[in-house]
Amino acid sequence: MTDPPRHDPLNPVDDTARALARGLMTGATSGALAVLEEDGGPFVSRIALAPSPEGVPMALLSGLSVHTRALMADPRCALLLGEPGAKGDPLTHPRLSLRALAAFADPAEDTDLRAHFVRLRPKAAVYAGLPDFRAVRFRPLSASLNGGFGRAYALAASDLAP
Amino acid sequence: MTDPPRHDPLNPVDDTARALARGLMTGATSGALAVLEEDGGPFVSRIALAPSPEGVPMALLSGLSVHTRALMADPRCALLLGEPGAKGDPLTHPRLSLRALAAFADPAEDTDLRAHFVRLRPKAAVYAGLPDFRAVRFRPLSASLNGGFGRAYALAASDLAP
Repeated sequence: MTDPPRHDPLNPVDDTARALARGLMTGATSGALAVLEEDGGPFVSRIALAPSPEGVPMALLSGLSVHTRALMADPRCALLLGEPGAKGDPLTHPRLSLRALAAFADPAEDTDLRAHFVRLRPKAAVYAGLPDFRAVRFRPLSASLNGGFGRAYALAASDLAP
Repeated sequence: MTDPPRHDPLNPVDDTARALARGLMTGATSGALAVLEEDGGPFVSRIALAPSPEGVPMALLSGLSVHTRALMADPRCALLLGEPGAKGDPLTHPRLSLRALAAFADPAEDTDLRAHFVRLRPKAAVYAGLPDFRAVRFRPLSASLNGGFGRAYALAASDLAP
């Protein structure tokens, strides 16, 4: 017999976990976006976020940025959603590690999606009209939800669907 | 002649930018850690951080977590440092996108590094003694510093040295 594990890394997914994950996806105003650079190494930067009309995370990204060039070459990405508060332990705040594929809007839809984003995040009006910016959706693949120490869940795409 | 760019993506690195980057590296109590999973895709999660005795970011990571297993297989990683405040536009807060290599402490040093971390981050005492946790340093390779919209800098390892 070996010693029992000191803390169970995963809990069974239930409706409470699904609702918490959905709330983090639609409520995030910013998040950490991880992408792959040309050499295959990871890069992570902060972006502004809002829910798309269908309820997946979306952003307006500058074509001049490292993350946009990376996503145009390889759409695999990850988002960390759920910012810690200014006080207290940042590891006790719920957060979602979302695996996703980036889908840039086609030109016919891009203008409408930019306007949708600016309606939800008025401060984005500063850059939403710049010619190098593009609207992008993050299509959820799976996620790891952490509701605090010892409260981890592995979610499938179906758990994350709007 | 083409139109001039609407905003210059990079500013020349100066001592003010280096000091801001160093402050974000040593002052961060948490950050977003991006790693590579087995399939080569990115994953990003929140970890607690403190400066190592030499002044690079370090953490205590659980061997049960996705990010630790990923780093043991491939040490390439990235850290987003500089949490936005509770109020205001999260994209106006300075942040550092650091490319790094994870270096797990060897067993002879691991106990001392755990104790160092707990001295700086007393709340880590809850998990620092668990048998699956390991001390890890993040050795800086290069970084992108963003001091707010239009204030971006590309920093080399020499700009980030303590």
